Amino acid sequence: MIIVMSLDSTDMQVNDVVSRLEMEKISYNIEKVGLRTLILLAVNKDRIDEVFLANYPGVESLASSWASLPIIGKNYLEYREYSLKKFNLKEEKPIIIAGPCAVESRDQVFDIAKHIHDKISLFRGGAYKPRTSPYSFQGMGIDALKYLKEVKEEFSVPVVSEVMSQKQLEEAYDYLDVIQIGARNMQNFELLKEVGTQDKAVILKRGLSATIEEWLNAAEYIATRGNENIILCERGIRTFSKDTRNTLDLSSVPIVKSRTHLPVIVDPSHATGYWNLVEPMALAAIAAGADGLMIEVHNAPDKALSDGDQSLKLERFNEIITKVKKLYQLMTTF
Amino acid sequence: MIIVMSLDSTDMQVNDVVSRLEMEKISYNIEKVGLRTLILLAVNKDRIDEVFLANYPGVESLASSWASLPIIGKNYLEYREYSLKKFNLKEEKPIIIAGPCAVESRDQVFDIAKHIHDKISLFRGGAYKPRTSPYSFQGMGIDALKYLKEVKEEFSVPVVSEVMSQKQLEEAYDYLDVIQIGARNMQNFELLKEVGTQDKAVILKRGLSATIEEWLNAAEYIATRGNENIILCERGIRTFSKDTRNTLDLSSVPIVKSRTHLPVIVDPSHATGYWNLVEPMALAAIAAGADGLMIEVHNAPDKALSDGDQSLKLERFNEIITKVKKLYQLMTTF
Amino acid sequence: MIIVMSLDSTDMQVNDVVSRLEMEKISYNIEKVGLRTLILLAVNKDRIDEVFLANYPGVESLASSWASLPIIGKNYLEYREYSLKKFNLKEEKPIIIAGPCAVESRDQVFDIAKHIHDKISLFRGGAYKPRTSPYSFQGMGIDALKYLKEVKEEFSVPVVSEVMSQKQLEEAYDYLDVIQIGARNMQNFELLKEVGTQDKAVILKRGLSATIEEWLNAAEYIATRGNENIILCERGIRTFSKDTRNTLDLSSVPIVKSRTHLPVIVDPSHATGYWNLVEPMALAAIAAGADGLMIEVHNAPDKALSDGDQSLKLERFNEIITKVKKLYQLMTTF
Amino acid sequence: MIIVMSLDSTDMQVNDVVSRLEMEKISYNIEKVGLRTLILLAVNKDRIDEVFLANYPGVESLASSWASLPIIGKNYLEYREYSLKKFNLKEEKPIIIAGPCAVESRDQVFDIAKHIHDKISLFRGGAYKPRTSPYSFQGMGIDALKYLKEVKEEFSVPVVSEVMSQKQLEEAYDYLDVIQIGARNMQNFELLKEVGTQDKAVILKRGLSATIEEWLNAAEYIATRGNENIILCERGIRTFSKDTRNTLDLSSVPIVKSRTHLPVIVDPSHATGYWNLVEPMALAAIAAGADGLMIEVHNAPDKALSDGDQSLKLERFNEIITKVKKLYQLMTTF
Repeated sequence: MIIVMSLDSTDMQVNDVVSRLEMEKISYNIEKVGLRTLILLAVNKDRIDEVFLANYPGVESLASSWASLPIIGKNYLEYREYSLKKFNLKEEKPIIIAGPCAVESRDQVFDIAKHIHDKISLFRGGAYKPRTSPYSFQGMGIDALKYLKEVKEEFSVPVVSEVMSQKQLEEAYDYLDVIQIGARNMQNFELLKEVGTQDKAVILKRGLSATIEEWLNAAEYIATRGNENIILCERGIRTFSKDTRNTLDLSSVPIVKSRTHLPVIVDPSHATGYWNLVEPMALAAIAAGADGLMIEVHNAPDKALSDGDQSLKLERFNEIITKVKKLYQLMTTF
Repeated sequence: MIIVMSLDSTDMQVNDVVSRLEMEKISYNIEKVGLRTLILLAVNKDRIDEVFLANYPGVESLASSWASLPIIGKNYLEYREYSLKKFNLKEEKPIIIAGPCAVESRDQVFDIAKHIHDKISLFRGGAYKPRTSPYSFQGMGIDALKYLKEVKEEFSVPVVSEVMSQKQLEEAYDYLDVIQIGARNMQNFELLKEVGTQDKAVILKRGLSATIEEWLNAAEYIATRGNENIILCERGIRTFSKDTRNTLDLSSVPIVKSRTHLPVIVDPSHATGYWNLVEPMALAAIAAGADGLMIEVHNAPDKALSDGDQSLKLERFNEIITKVKKLYQLMTTF
Repeated sequence: MIIVMSLDSTDMQVNDVVSRLEMEKISYNIEKVGLRTLILLAVNKDRIDEVFLANYPGVESLASSWASLPIIGKNYLEYREYSLKKFNLKEEKPIIIAGPCAVESRDQVFDIAKHIHDKISLFRGGAYKPRTSPYSFQGMGIDALKYLKEVKEEFSVPVVSEVMSQKQLEEAYDYLDVIQIGARNMQNFELLKEVGTQDKAVILKRGLSATIEEWLNAAEYIATRGNENIILCERGIRTFSKDTRNTLDLSSVPIVKSRTHLPVIVDPSHATGYWNLVEPMALAAIAAGADGLMIEVHNAPDKALSDGDQSLKLERFNEIITKVKKLYQLMTTF
Repeated sequence: MIIVMSLDSTDMQVNDVVSRLEMEKISYNIEKVGLRTLILLAVNKDRIDEVFLANYPGVESLASSWASLPIIGKNYLEYREYSLKKFNLKEEKPIIIAGPCAVESRDQVFDIAKHIHDKISLFRGGAYKPRTSPYSFQGMGIDALKYLKEVKEEFSVPVVSEVMSQKQLEEAYDYLDVIQIGARNMQNFELLKEVGTQDKAVILKRGLSATIEEWLNAAEYIATRGNENIILCERGIRTFSKDTRNTLDLSSVPIVKSRTHLPVIVDPSHATGYWNLVEPMALAAIAAGADGLMIEVHNAPDKALSDGDQSLKLERFNEIITKVKKLYQLMTTF
């Protein structure tokens, strides 16, 4: 049994809990993980409920074990109804995140944003690109971030981009509303801890061969440092199949939702690698219970500097979003 | 370029085509694969269209190469609208196939059929069970088939069961409306040829680690013997993920539909291995464009002789089908 | 606890065992699986050892559970030293099996056999070929078998070929010394039972995505029918890696050897798909403890009707075998 | 065609090459990637050999394309014979790296080092541990590094440990002879660039689901920054198989050796996850052509804070190394 103290709990509150434990002759250990104080008990949950510990000031929740993910798994049923505002997103569900794979020019992002800004919760565009070869286009860096900020101001839409190191995080911080951790860095534990200490929402993509347990524990790493505004993003896993770039594992959506209160979205663009599979997989994701989508769009996919094959044209994107919203509407009636 | 002659084309018709080819000085090879006559040309499709070969009596279709699957891939756009009657199924879409993993008793199948027969296109129940261990329950065999036939007569619902060898196919033939080839036998080429020579519809499950190309070629094996009434069934693939029994690869649905006119259904029970994942994955399958579902239901899942974890209770099944039909309805408007 | 009765145990012997169990008030169940009589007890092994059941006439061995594979897992330490003669193989270790992927002509197999017959335990050549597409070369069938038999007579080397159905098994039976079950048929349970009833040795290849448990249980299926002369063959598994045709899983060799007394060999040709990887993987297999190798050789790999890329030229094969034997020699000293 | 200029080439030397290109009317592009100057030409290699560019001062080598990995793939045949001294290793082959998974105390590393120091090239011990859960033991950090340095001084054996961020790299730099980049950080491109700028050898482990192309490109990232002292380490990939912790892909050894001159070693401990599989897989690795091994040993595996199951006891390690050296000796005669 683990007692999760709230981020702003005081030493006095911890002491009060501890006094009660001692009175009840329950042995305990205090663990500091990141900013969190967690009190680990040697008894099971039933025993504790009796002593009303959950109602002590400063106690946020009770978890049955480390495996139950004390922070992101806490009381997930009551926490389920997250607010998009908390994530700095526009307040309409489902969450729709879209934009080009890589920012290529000011004109490019403005052209795309002009067409899609009123249909999305968040605009995406890669500034630092993780590329297999050191000789491939590595992203425009700081210039890309500046263009994103201009997009944000011009179209009143929040923006997100991926960072791959503490240095990039510092560089990008002021330009972005949401920080993305990519699949290749899902277990870059030092980076997870860094984004855990700042106060912007984080999109955490599932690693290429990560189990759900590993993915959720990566989110827990972020949460232990104090930042609980995390959106999980399924983007396909690596399997023997060569028919798609990755294999979209939609069963992860209901599994994740049964274990944490965090929202989970799906990226059908990276998951499939082909623009013509984006629509069926976007609809399937919503039907599976996803809270939103991340989709790559481009004003000229055949000239894209990366991932052109999987990028939608602007008109096609609008058609898909119309369908997605109708489907999401139906799902809310189930 | 390949000219696909129809199953009932005559030698005279083949000769007429060949005469024209010789007149046009196009060299050719005649190949007999199973019951089919295929005429292989050394020129590309454009050149042939000029000579109007497609309109010769006895010519069924033209394929660009072996890779385009001359029979099951033929003219897929115009063939797309299949008739359920052709498959001996009840005429309502989506195709819903349900029943227990294994037939365990006459009472069991009657109890299940009574509750679900009016919601399904086809009743399933295993008579011969492919089990990892020779010491596990191997199915009731011929007795199971008799009970299925009684179910069919009592409830006016067609029935399907899996066969694993020519001998079982012969034994089961008279009892069944549809024959199922299981995942482990997807590349049992001799069995594929056998079911290709009989006149009942075949459900062909995707193999545990089969690529889509291998799966479609397995269907083509059946078709070359004359039987083109094939329903493809995605049932999950084997990956590193341990969170589900298999990983449901829903992207196979739109890919298969872009390459063949055959209907494709999804089995969320085997794909996930857990009954509580059946609903979200069933809905996702329909949203991805699947023509139907195969679902395991049981009147007492906790006492099932096999696959109890993934079997739905009867009431839950009915709720899910209601949602599935609403979703299918919405999809037809897209 | 399971008592494994020998294949030739009499009813009287079974009765004697049963009488003793009743005297000891141990409850039991008699199970007939294939030709085997197995007596299942509700007590653990320690308790049984006391009553000396293992020494009763007709009792072959004791197994702790179904999971311990009562037949192929029996007393594996003392059974470890198998005799090649029992498998109809030439008596020299390691087991070397070689020949072309497919028999293509009488000249071809004679040319190959002439060069390699004195270096091998068994000559291989495909008569019936499992091919992804129905339009690929399907093997020469009965003609291939006749050529193999001629090779056997001319060069005094036993021969093996794959069968994919009961019909092919019957057709091929008289021509072959050893029967091969291919990877795609590893869980073709009806075929496993068929080869279990005949009296020739069987090579059982591991399925493309089979766990070791599934593979060993497939062997147990054969053994329950009475045929225990089984050689297991690791040939690579299907993974995300595209660098080789399959991924050779050499750790299966020591794992299999810790669970069964059956010999295990490795096929580096199919496992890698490239002739230049055959030597390093053949040596690695021997170092991992494999009892032998199955290697594809061809007199003209660039003209091979199947698998030319992975076939060795004749001279190269001889060089490799020399190294393999030196390495095997060193391994026997460890 | 790409001209790779040496790290210490001067601007003048680049100019000389460029002048010649202009004289020959060959168009070119100069690319600076990290510390390297690369000159990209629009013609193929044959054409260039004629003009003897390879002999110009400051030209290190010629590569046919980015895919041929201009730096780590350069002239691999002549570079093959690497010097262990260059890597700060003790000069005896094969390379043997061993030590505990995690440094747990001064006593622990001293006890282990005392027993194995004279059999190894490099002593390993984890200071910062990448752990799935934030609640697992995360390593002793700086204290661990101090103990490693003491081991180095006491036993005259160089030491290696893993770093996971730039900050850890800086902290650890002075204590270590060799830096390890773990599997989870194989595509942490910013970290790769960091280790590329310092002057200690780097062990680069293959990612859990990395293709060989991705792995070699990760090494090329390091090399573009100037550090070419890289040892590649195969440690198993993630597949469907649950019989071992990972699946050891030994075919990567000969493939890597055919594409780069860098040494490649194998870690049978992580690859299998079980100490009793370490010996057969260590021998198999050497037989496959590996240049060395990385093995986990522990003085009390059953009390290890991480990876106890896969750690060898000290006596067992010594036995295995004796066999490994005999086998390596045999391999040098092939």
